[in-house]
Amino acid sequence: MTQIAEHGQDRYAGATEGPLLLRRPYIIFLGDIENPFDAKTGFGLRDWSGEHCVGQVRLSERAVDLGLPEFPLRDSQGPWSGSLVLGVSPMGGAIEPHWIPTLARAAAGGLDVVSGLHQRLGDIAEVRDAARRSGARLVDVRHSNRRFDVATGRKRTGQRVLTVGTDCAVGKKYTALSLARALRAAGRDADFRATGQTGIMIGGGGIAIDAVVADFIAGAAEALSPDAAPSHWDVVEGQGSLFHPAYAGVSLGLLHGTQPDWIVMCHDPLRSAVDGLPHCRLPTLSEAIQRNLEAARLTNAAVQCLGISLNTSGMTAGSASAVLAAARGETGLPAVDPIRTGVAALLERLDAAT
Amino acid sequence: MTQIAEHGQDRYAGATEGPLLLRRPYIIFLGDIENPFDAKTGFGLRDWSGEHCVGQVRLSERAVDLGLPEFPLRDSQGPWSGSLVLGVSPMGGAIEPHWIPTLARAAAGGLDVVSGLHQRLGDIAEVRDAARRSGARLVDVRHSNRRFDVATGRKRTGQRVLTVGTDCAVGKKYTALSLARALRAAGRDADFRATGQTGIMIGGGGIAIDAVVADFIAGAAEALSPDAAPSHWDVVEGQGSLFHPAYAGVSLGLLHGTQPDWIVMCHDPLRSAVDGLPHCRLPTLSEAIQRNLEAARLTNAAVQCLGISLNTSGMTAGSASAVLAAARGETGLPAVDPIRTGVAALLERLDAAT
Repeated sequence: MTQIAEHGQDRYAGATEGPLLLRRPYIIFLGDIENPFDAKTGFGLRDWSGEHCVGQVRLSERAVDLGLPEFPLRDSQGPWSGSLVLGVSPMGGAIEPHWIPTLARAAAGGLDVVSGLHQRLGDIAEVRDAARRSGARLVDVRHSNRRFDVATGRKRTGQRVLTVGTDCAVGKKYTALSLARALRAAGRDADFRATGQTGIMIGGGGIAIDAVVADFIAGAAEALSPDAAPSHWDVVEGQGSLFHPAYAGVSLGLLHGTQPDWIVMCHDPLRSAVDGLPHCRLPTLSEAIQRNLEAARLTNAAVQCLGISLNTSGMTAGSASAVLAAARGETGLPAVDPIRTGVAALLERLDAAT
Repeated sequence: MTQIAEHGQDRYAGATEGPLLLRRPYIIFLGDIENPFDAKTGFGLRDWSGEHCVGQVRLSERAVDLGLPEFPLRDSQGPWSGSLVLGVSPMGGAIEPHWIPTLARAAAGGLDVVSGLHQRLGDIAEVRDAARRSGARLVDVRHSNRRFDVATGRKRTGQRVLTVGTDCAVGKKYTALSLARALRAAGRDADFRATGQTGIMIGGGGIAIDAVVADFIAGAAEALSPDAAPSHWDVVEGQGSLFHPAYAGVSLGLLHGTQPDWIVMCHDPLRSAVDGLPHCRLPTLSEAIQRNLEAARLTNAAVQCLGISLNTSGMTAGSASAVLAAARGETGLPAVDPIRTGVAALLERLDAAT
């Protein structure tokens, strides 16, 4: 997605305090993590931003292997350019003490170090001092030190799709990435706009919207998808859900600030309650669509729902077909699983409508 | 409202990182501000927290006079206890350079200095150093350095009213203050829960909810009105509006985290569009109520609208009566202006229902 990020970069260049931009190429740090589940970020980077991933750093033979060349961090002192990106997120979100010398060595050699973990890189003296000496940046994409204007609600030029969901972790990021990729493959001018840490790493920039100060959520979303050419598409990664008791405020501010022309409703068909909160039942697809459209009309009266994106990864082919058909039946809209079926049905509807 | 804050204090004592608490008594700093409009905070403190306001500090004979005793800041070096509260908010929100020696003198003598302005007290070297030496606190209530847990949506004990609105600055704070005062006057156990800087100063504590990091809006609101006795009332000051393109996320998170049993809809009858954003038309009262109730049901299925609070301060008595009657007619609910009519009609409905 080189062109995507570069396109974004040009349009962000005027914003002194706008979205974050990462430095490429990427070297993926995997530590000694052996459970592939804890290396989801690394796999996501390889799968969605592979052309920018030039190497991996593993601290043990048994560590997760992304199949990238081993980066010779120990064989030289640099100077290197680009970023060492932490592709791992162990339970608890802390950086293991025995990883620190490697991170410091990367920073000392001029690599930016990029982390989506809770613990801040700048709080680790050895890494901080190394970066200070070399001029490398320490980028904690989960934390935001960026400033944004308050939203105005002014209608912007260009076209926007926002992925929304019935809950957290239902495929909003993958759906947005798939749509942006498909739009570009179809010759459209499209940017993926990241709002979460993994999306930012994959897209090479963006805004961790849940780390923005509350007053500026919608303003940050406005800055994320600025005025663009009439035929340009921004595909914005959604966050949270209007139906999540902790995160609905983030979702609403993102919805208002994005002012989408289209929303895509993402859902996990195996889930009936908010993840981890069994007392919070999820809405039906129809209700979720209606409530999101109702709220979105505040900043774009013409908003429509493009279709449904289901994560059917835990299902058999037969079950997946059945839930996709049921979603079509309930809503009268195209229903896809970006991984299983691709998003062609969504693109067809866009083509028919625009 | 002594008991209100002390009650709050007890219940907050367990939270190491919860809401802010201010130190009383208050001395109100008025600088040399001559326009009463720029001293709204000072008047609000005198009117709503008068029993805690023991003095005022004026730097000129022509400065706004709240009728409080002049505090002899220059006649002694302290030690004093309590807070010097900036009761002024000049255009631009900056602290005038010639105020600084007085603020530093207060801090040197042991007074906390409390400001709701944009400029941070801690960024002023003279004040910061004085406070460091004496141990006084510098409290920028507009900025939050507090941490909160993510919301859970768990139903809490006790009863809650939240003031909501069709827009910003339509009387949500005054309505909440009036209701809390009236509940206490009627012998009920009630706390005013502040969510904005002026409310925090008046109430002696609270959370500047719009300064919280987005992920924690609802969590902060949960911390603000913790479990309480079944007969206890928290009256929570609302912020923003679900219909404001910049602040709806804050309003929704506050609504979800508060999980109100009752909402009161606040409105300025002279306003037809969002303040400063003429392209954003305001909803009708009925629509505003319905949309707020719909959203609030996520965390409290039993939520109801208690009534309407109109700010009729710019209207004749006849016009005020007419708009109040029209609001009653449209919604079938009691409609009051807290200043003009008092809130007895709201209390009657609560009494009838609980």
